[in-house]
Formats: sequence, C-alpha cells, structure tokens
Amino acid sequence: MGKQKIFLDKISRALHIQNKLLRQGLAECLGTLILVMFGCGSVAQLVLSEGSHGIFLAVNLAFGFAVTLGILVCGQVSGGHLNPAVTFALCLLGREKWRKFPVYFFFQTLGAFLGAGVIFGMYYDAMHIRADRDKKLPIGIFATYPSEHLSIVNGFFDQLIGTAALIVCILAIVDPYNNPIPQGLEAFTVGFTVLVIGLSMGFNSGYAVNPARDFGPRLFTAIAGWGSQVFTNGNCWFLVPIFAPFLGAVVGTLVYQLMVGWHVEGEARDKKRATEDSVKLNDINDGSTVP
Amino acid sequence: MGKQKIFLDKISRALHIQNKLLRQGLAECLGTLILVMFGCGSVAQLVLSEGSHGIFLAVNLAFGFAVTLGILVCGQVSGGHLNPAVTFALCLLGREKWRKFPVYFFFQTLGAFLGAGVIFGMYYDAMHIRADRDKKLPIGIFATYPSEHLSIVNGFFDQLIGTAALIVCILAIVDPYNNPIPQGLEAFTVGFTVLVIGLSMGFNSGYAVNPARDFGPRLFTAIAGWGSQVFTNGNCWFLVPIFAPFLGAVVGTLVYQLMVGWHVEGEARDKKRATEDSVKLNDINDGSTVP
Amino acid sequence: MGKQKIFLDKISRALHIQNKLLRQGLAECLGTLILVMFGCGSVAQLVLSEGSHGIFLAVNLAFGFAVTLGILVCGQVSGGHLNPAVTFALCLLGREKWRKFPVYFFFQTLGAFLGAGVIFGMYYDAMHIRADRDKKLPIGIFATYPSEHLSIVNGFFDQLIGTAALIVCILAIVDPYNNPIPQGLEAFTVGFTVLVIGLSMGFNSGYAVNPARDFGPRLFTAIAGWGSQVFTNGNCWFLVPIFAPFLGAVVGTLVYQLMVGWHVEGEARDKKRATEDSVKLNDINDGSTVP
Amino acid sequence: MGKQKIFLDKISRALHIQNKLLRQGLAECLGTLILVMFGCGSVAQLVLSEGSHGIFLAVNLAFGFAVTLGILVCGQVSGGHLNPAVTFALCLLGREKWRKFPVYFFFQTLGAFLGAGVIFGMYYDAMHIRADRDKKLPIGIFATYPSEHLSIVNGFFDQLIGTAALIVCILAIVDPYNNPIPQGLEAFTVGFTVLVIGLSMGFNSGYAVNPARDFGPRLFTAIAGWGSQVFTNGNCWFLVPIFAPFLGAVVGTLVYQLMVGWHVEGEARDKKRATEDSVKLNDINDGSTVP
Repeated sequence: MGKQKIFLDKISRALHIQNKLLRQGLAECLGTLILVMFGCGSVAQLVLSEGSHGIFLAVNLAFGFAVTLGILVCGQVSGGHLNPAVTFALCLLGREKWRKFPVYFFFQTLGAFLGAGVIFGMYYDAMHIRADRDKKLPIGIFATYPSEHLSIVNGFFDQLIGTAALIVCILAIVDPYNNPIPQGLEAFTVGFTVLVIGLSMGFNSGYAVNPARDFGPRLFTAIAGWGSQVFTNGNCWFLVPIFAPFLGAVVGTLVYQLMVGWHVEGEARDKKRATEDSVKLNDINDGSTVP
Repeated sequence: MGKQKIFLDKISRALHIQNKLLRQGLAECLGTLILVMFGCGSVAQLVLSEGSHGIFLAVNLAFGFAVTLGILVCGQVSGGHLNPAVTFALCLLGREKWRKFPVYFFFQTLGAFLGAGVIFGMYYDAMHIRADRDKKLPIGIFATYPSEHLSIVNGFFDQLIGTAALIVCILAIVDPYNNPIPQGLEAFTVGFTVLVIGLSMGFNSGYAVNPARDFGPRLFTAIAGWGSQVFTNGNCWFLVPIFAPFLGAVVGTLVYQLMVGWHVEGEARDKKRATEDSVKLNDINDGSTVP
Repeated sequence: MGKQKIFLDKISRALHIQNKLLRQGLAECLGTLILVMFGCGSVAQLVLSEGSHGIFLAVNLAFGFAVTLGILVCGQVSGGHLNPAVTFALCLLGREKWRKFPVYFFFQTLGAFLGAGVIFGMYYDAMHIRADRDKKLPIGIFATYPSEHLSIVNGFFDQLIGTAALIVCILAIVDPYNNPIPQGLEAFTVGFTVLVIGLSMGFNSGYAVNPARDFGPRLFTAIAGWGSQVFTNGNCWFLVPIFAPFLGAVVGTLVYQLMVGWHVEGEARDKKRATEDSVKLNDINDGSTVP
Repeated sequence: MGKQKIFLDKISRALHIQNKLLRQGLAECLGTLILVMFGCGSVAQLVLSEGSHGIFLAVNLAFGFAVTLGILVCGQVSGGHLNPAVTFALCLLGREKWRKFPVYFFFQTLGAFLGAGVIFGMYYDAMHIRADRDKKLPIGIFATYPSEHLSIVNGFFDQLIGTAALIVCILAIVDPYNNPIPQGLEAFTVGFTVLVIGLSMGFNSGYAVNPARDFGPRLFTAIAGWGSQVFTNGNCWFLVPIFAPFLGAVVGTLVYQLMVGWHVEGEARDKKRATEDSVKLNDINDGSTVP
C-alpha cells in the first residue's frame, strides 16, 4: 500500500490547480453538471417511458435532491450556487465579489451543457427509437418550453416570481444574522426549496428559474440534432429563462431584506452597540473591562 | 466594493424598523405569504393541469414543506407561527403575550392574502383559459370548500380535530421540558406534521386548520372575480375554518398537557427541588455550597 | 399575565401524576393514538376518496411519519415504543424491565383504539354515505385483513419477517454500542424504517407488524358497527398480527445481535479492558493513576 | 433481571467473533441483505399488485432508504459500503486495504442472495398464483434486465454512468478534506443519492449500479426455479451490471478527484505548511513555539 499512497500523493500534487477562482469554477461546473444530469435525466425518464417509470412528482423530487447533491459536491469549494441568479443575488448584497459572477456564470453553463450531454448519451437508444416512431426528436427533456396556454408576459412573470421565491428562501437559509438551521443542512434545505417550487410553480413552463440550467442544455440540443428550433420555439422563449431570473433575484433580495433581512441585521447591530456601551460604562465606573 | 458596502449599510440603517412587534408582524406576513404561495400554487398546478402536473400527494408535500420554508424565513424574528391557532395555543400556555395575538392574526391573514395574489398572477393565463372553457372560474384553488358528502357538524369536527392534532405535535416539538429534536430542526418537523395531516385528514374539506391561510385567500378571491359566492358556498362554510381551529387549539393544548406536558414539567420541578434540597442539606452539614 | 401564570402553575401541580409507570403508559397511549390516527386516517382517505385523494405511497408516507410524530410526542417520557413487539424486544435484551411490558401493551392498545375512534368520527359522513351505497361498511380502513392470494402460513411468515426487519433496524438505531445517527434523529429514522417496510412489505396484508396498532382498531370496529366479522374474517386472521410480531421480535433480535450487536459490544468490552490494563500497568510502574 | 443480564453477558462473550475482517464481512452481509430485502421487496410489491400497491417512484424511495437503513445497521462496523464498486473506489484511493475487497465482495453478494430469499418467501403465494396464471414466473423482481429499446453498448454506458454518478456523490460525502454534512447523516445522504439515481437513471435497465445487488439475487432466482434463462436473457446481460460498475467507479473517482478532490486536499496541504512555516519562524525569532 505504500507505493499506492506515494503515487496518489504525486498525482494530487501534480494536478492541484493554484488559481482559486479556477478551482471554484471547476467545482461549480461539476455541481451544475450533477444538477442537470439528475434533473434532466428524470424528465427524460418520464417522457421516454411515457409515464411507466415517471410522474411529474418524481421530476420535482429529482430536481430538488439533485440541487442538494450538487451543492454537497462543490459547496465547500465554491459555495454551491449552481445558478447565476443566486450568484447575482449574493453579489448584490456584497457577500460575493462581482468578478466571480462572469466566471461562475460560464462554468455553471458549461456544467449544465455537459450534464445534458451525459443524459443524451445515457438515453441515446430510447430517444432515437422514439424519434424514429414520431419522426422528430422529443422536445422538452433538456431545455424548458412554455405551455400552450402561456403568454410571453405571464411567462416572464412566472420566471420572475419563481426565482424571487427561490432567492427569498436561500437568503433566509444563508443569512449570517438569521441562522435558522444547523450548519451542514443548507444543501438539504435548498433542495427542499427547489422541490416545493417544482410542486407549485412547474406547470407554466417547467420552472427553469436558472439561466445556466436552461441555456446550457438548450445549446447542447441545438448542436446534438434539434437545430435552431430550440431558440425560435415559443417566440424566442429561450430569452425568458435567461433574463427574468436576474430580475427575480433583485425582487427576491428586496423582499427578503425589506421584510426580514435588514431588521435582523439592525437588531444585531443594536445588541452589539449595547454591549459596547455597557463595557464603556464599566470602564468609567471601576476601571476594569468585562470580557 | 467599498462603495457598495457603504451604500448597503446606509439602506440597512434607514429601513430598520424600531418597533419589535411590527418587525415580528412583517416577518409573520412574509412567512405566511410563502406558505400560501407554495401551498395554493400546488393546488393550482393540480387543478389547472388536470392531473398531468400534480397529484394530491404533491399538494400535501407542497403544503408541508411550504410550512417548513415559511418558518425558516421568519422563525428567528417572530417564532414562525404562520397560523393564528398556533399563536392562540401559545398564548393560552403563557408562552406568548396576548397582545401579540391580534397583530399576528392580522399580518398572517395579510400574508395569506398576498400569497394568493402572487399565485393568481402566476397562473392568470391558465386560469382564464379554463374559465373561458368552463364558463366559470375554477373554485377550490385558494380557499377550502367542503366535499359534497360533508355535513356542517362533521366539517366542524374535521377542522377541530385537524387543528388539535397539529397543536399536539407542535407543543411536543417546542415544549421546553420535552426537547425531542436537535435545535434548528423544528421547522422541518412541523412541516412533516402538516404533511401527515394532509395525507390523512385532507379528504373532507382540504385541511385548512388555519384561519389566516383560509380567510386571506378567500378574501382575495372575493375581490379578484369570484364574488360573494366564496362566502355563501356550503352554508357559509367559510366560518368553520375560522372558528373551529381555535376550539381545536384548546382541545389540542389540553390533550397534550394532560397526557404529557404537565408531567414532564412536574418531573423537571421535582428534580430541581431535589437538587436544591441536597444543596441545603450540604449547607447545614458542612457550611459550604455546591455550585 | 401574572394571574394566568399562577393559574397554569396550579393546574400543572394539581394534575401532575406521581406514578412514573402510569405517566409512561399515558405517554405511550398518546403516541400510539397519534400513530393510528394519522396512519388509519390516510387509509380512510385513500379508500373513501376512491383514489382521488390518496395512493398507496401516501399511506406508506403517512404511517412512516405518523410513527415519527408519535415517538416525538412521547419519546422523552416513555421511550416511544408505540408497539408491544418493540417493548418485547427491548425487554428480551434487558434494556427495559419486564413489568413495563403488560402496562405498555395495555396503553398502546388503548391509544390505538382511541385513534381509530377519532378517525371514525372524522370520516363519519363519508363512511356512512359509502355504507348506504354499498350496503356494508367499508372494511380494511382500521384493522388489517389478508389479500385474497395469501395463505395463513404465508401470512404468518409475512408478519414475522416484517416485524423482524423493523426490530433489526430499531436495534441498530438505539444500540448504545453502535450509534449511527445524531441524537434526536432516532424518531425520524424509525419513521423511515416504517415507510420502507410499507413500500416493500405492504401488499400481502397491510404491514401491521404491531399487535396494538392492529388489535385496538379492530376492537373499535367490532363495537362501532362492523360486528364479529372483524374477528372471524380470513380464518381468524386477527390472531396473526397479534402473535407473529412477537416471534418476529425474537428473530429480529437474534439476527441483529448475532451479526452486529454482540460484536460491537465485545469490541467495546475489549477496548475498556485494554484501557484498564494499561492503567494498572501505570500504577505498578510509577504509582500514579491516569484518570 | 439479574439472571437475564448474566445470561445475556455470557452469550455475548461466547458469540463474539475475534477476527475483525470476518465481523466486518458479517456486517456488510446484513447491510446488503437489508438493502436487497427492502429494495427487491418494493419491486415485488409493484409487479405483483399490478400497480395497486406500488408505483415506480415507490421503488425509488424504497431502494434509496433501504440503502440508508443498510448503512445505519452496519456502518459503524464495516463502513457500510453495501456495494463492491464502492469498496473498489475506496481501495483505489487508498482509503481501504485491497485485501478487504474480495471479502466484502463475497459477503455483499451473500447478503443480497439471502435478501432475495427473504422476499421470495414473503411473496411466495402471490408469486406462484401469478405464475399459474401467466404460465411463467414473473421476471424482473430480483435481478435487473434491459428494456427492449436498450442495446448492449448503451446498457454498458448506462451502468457505467450510473455508478460513476453514485461514486462522485459518495466520495464528496465521505471526503475527509470536504466535509459537507454533519457527522451521522452520511447514510441519509447516500440514500438520497440512490433515490435520485433511480428517479433519473432507472428506465434503461433498473439501475443496478452494484454487482452484488444484481448478481446475488440473480443466483438465487437461478436456483429457486427460474433456471438458466436469468443468465442468458438479453445476450448475457448479467455480465454488464457486474463489470460496468467497476469501470464506472474508476471514472467517478477520476471525475471527482480531478474537479474537486485533489484541490481541497491541496488546499489543506498548503494551509498546514503555512502554519508550520509560521511556527518555525516564531521559533527562530523568539525561541518559543505557538501551540
């Protein structure tokens, strides 16, 4: 076993990337890959089995816990955003540096692209037998498309609200002044959030609420045989899950901060000042400091 | 980033509300908004998709974890009641002050009203296409209505028992003398309680067990186009989910306290006295106190 | 609020039961009431809604988390057995005193009886409208009955294996020498165990695996209008879920102890002795003891 | 109770196995037995009830939480691999000794064989009534078989990717340099991983992703009446879930280590060196060491 340890140690040292932002990007890439692989995989299973091996609830569960697993894999390195709208919200609040935003956006989209590729390979036979029967590749497995009933305005509102709801919950979960859950369970809680969003906001257009999760797989399908229809479908619907989530992130951040966030922060500030004042008072009174 | 931090700090100080009860009310408002948005959203998804994107189990899961998320968002500030019947039970046991009750009731109802509004906007297209087809707006998405088989007496008992079951479980979860779960998991456990109530007590009238969750959305639908039928339907059913839960809260509190609560409290009292007695004995014997 | 506190304190002192075993019995009674109320409630919802508000998976989830909630309510007082077969297994291993067994058995059965009564009241209208239509009360909501395909021998084996599987998992979860989960999560883990038993062992006869959960509700239905058929049905099937679980408890205890339990205990014993030996050695060498 | 304790203590000492590797093998055997008993039990319930008591989602939940329970039962003793591909990956990384691999493989396969036997006994009546009706024993309950659409190449890729996904998540969960979850929750997290794999990768061939879980039950069916068809079916499909998972373990290990693992390890190494350097600096400067 000695030789194996030495060999592994050598590899570890040789492949260790020095640039921290690049390491974080790689981690986000793997996390988002996992999210899309499991999430889109469950849609593929539902669509291709024509319901025998799936149900919409199973898709909701898969996306929810796929987010949990994605965060667990990369969270210690990169924070586990998996979603440019989350990175954006955290930059807005000054909790992440703005220069992280484009890097994370790129690697999240790359991960989503690769995740779609894995599922494309895994269900290659099933998908192409279906394509032969229906004379077209099944649509809706990888990227999201609006339901027939949905207007573009309602669709934009749908994505905006879905992302705002996500951001409100995530900000509560990671707020340093409002720590509602034991450390280490954030990933599970965010997973439950995504599960609930799918259970209640999935009917209009499949709850992308994530520009990378939607655009990466869409790009993959454009290349893998679906062609340009993936962009033109639904009056260029593809722009909605790219832009609406960022506006949703702004709305969600404002709602949470106005109704809870700035008040818990203020309370913490008041308490800190009160402690400092009483310390000063003690100093004056008897010349000794209270630790 | 320096400028952004200073700007955020300024906003935080400017918008910090000094009145604690008002801050708590706002937090309850957001928490109940989240509960109703996700909960009623899942009913909307089930009803409007006619089963393709929903199943009653999905509604149960959505309401359960919506409660969890609602509590997580506001729990550190306001306790995360989200339900006037819960506030009532805690006031009964002297754990919350009675003057909180009307304030919480108002803000919980306001939050539920707003949550219904968000879902109304999100599914506006789907709901109105359905209304065009059926010549009436779909009923039962926002407020609860009794099943055909249900008499008003059985319906009152249904809401009473449902709320009593909720209160028994919540009192066990938050009982300071009976701490069965790790700190920080209360929100999840209450969510599972609501899930189970939905799984087993949802068939009669949709398990409102919460005056605010039922009346807020009902008021919204009265304004948003359903009209006064939402109050007259089912022999003024709307009064049942307002009044029965409070009686249920009394019953649940009595059952828990009689069968478990007062005994764990008594045991804690006995132990404390025993410790004090032994301390006194030590005092007498050797004149020194044990810390 | 002063008066309310004094009043509550008086009640608490007046109603505090001095006898510990009686307190534990009462707690088991409430816990099993909750288990049966939620569990049988979900079966009632499935049967009476004819599938619109239920699915077998929902029954499995309800029984699983009903066990969790039942344990949470009474676990700190009585250990949260909720099942005479569990009490029996713990007595076998010397972890509970044998005189607890009949007391727990009685109160668990009483709780199950009362839980069935609550659900009978809650679904009174729905059940009697169904009875009018079908000319008989719906069977299978409260107590378990064998499927048509099941012989009595296979049924006995079914209950034996189901209970053995339950006991193996519970013993692992509460084994003092094998502590696999964080304190406070035992109730959840036992809930998941019951969920999984339902998912995989529920088809033959509805996975009673608990003499109290089956006999209490059966007695209730005998009184509430179903009559003696609840005992004669299926060649006196009712005896199987009373006796097979105890044999299952013996088998489960043996399997766990033979394959894991006695070995972790032995390892702990070896370690302890090793420490003691090294302490003695130190004593001999330099006359000082290591704490 | 004194006599019982002495008797139990005697048994415990008499049956304590001294050989650690044998103890670990026995524990793996029981864990895998539990995994296969609950997992294949849920498939039996789905197949034999023809959908009335099952749904594919229930099978996914059962396998997921069966893994959790299996790990909880044996994890403290043997690590709770339950899967030769997991043992293989941990050996690859030098975290387990290679001589464990054949022992674990044998006992895991034995446990899976026995688990299949338990379920065969439990559903004996239901299975043979079905066999009488259909003139053949139902296939697909115990071992996995490919769907009709699946080629052997796609099937190999399916098992490879499924196992790689499992290994990436498990390595993240147990990585000593990347500890994303509280201690004691690893079993739950691995259970959720298997749940998600089933939700998204179960349609092609039933997600064995585990040589022991597939081969043990297959061997049992060969003996119990299905005959040699279990090996010849699907162009000797049975070889795929034996060999593809090991290749998947290599791929999964490489992906995780390249994208996350070696970087967190490197970072930990850098930090340690930095601390040591500053300590040395202190030594030189003032001759005292910082603890």
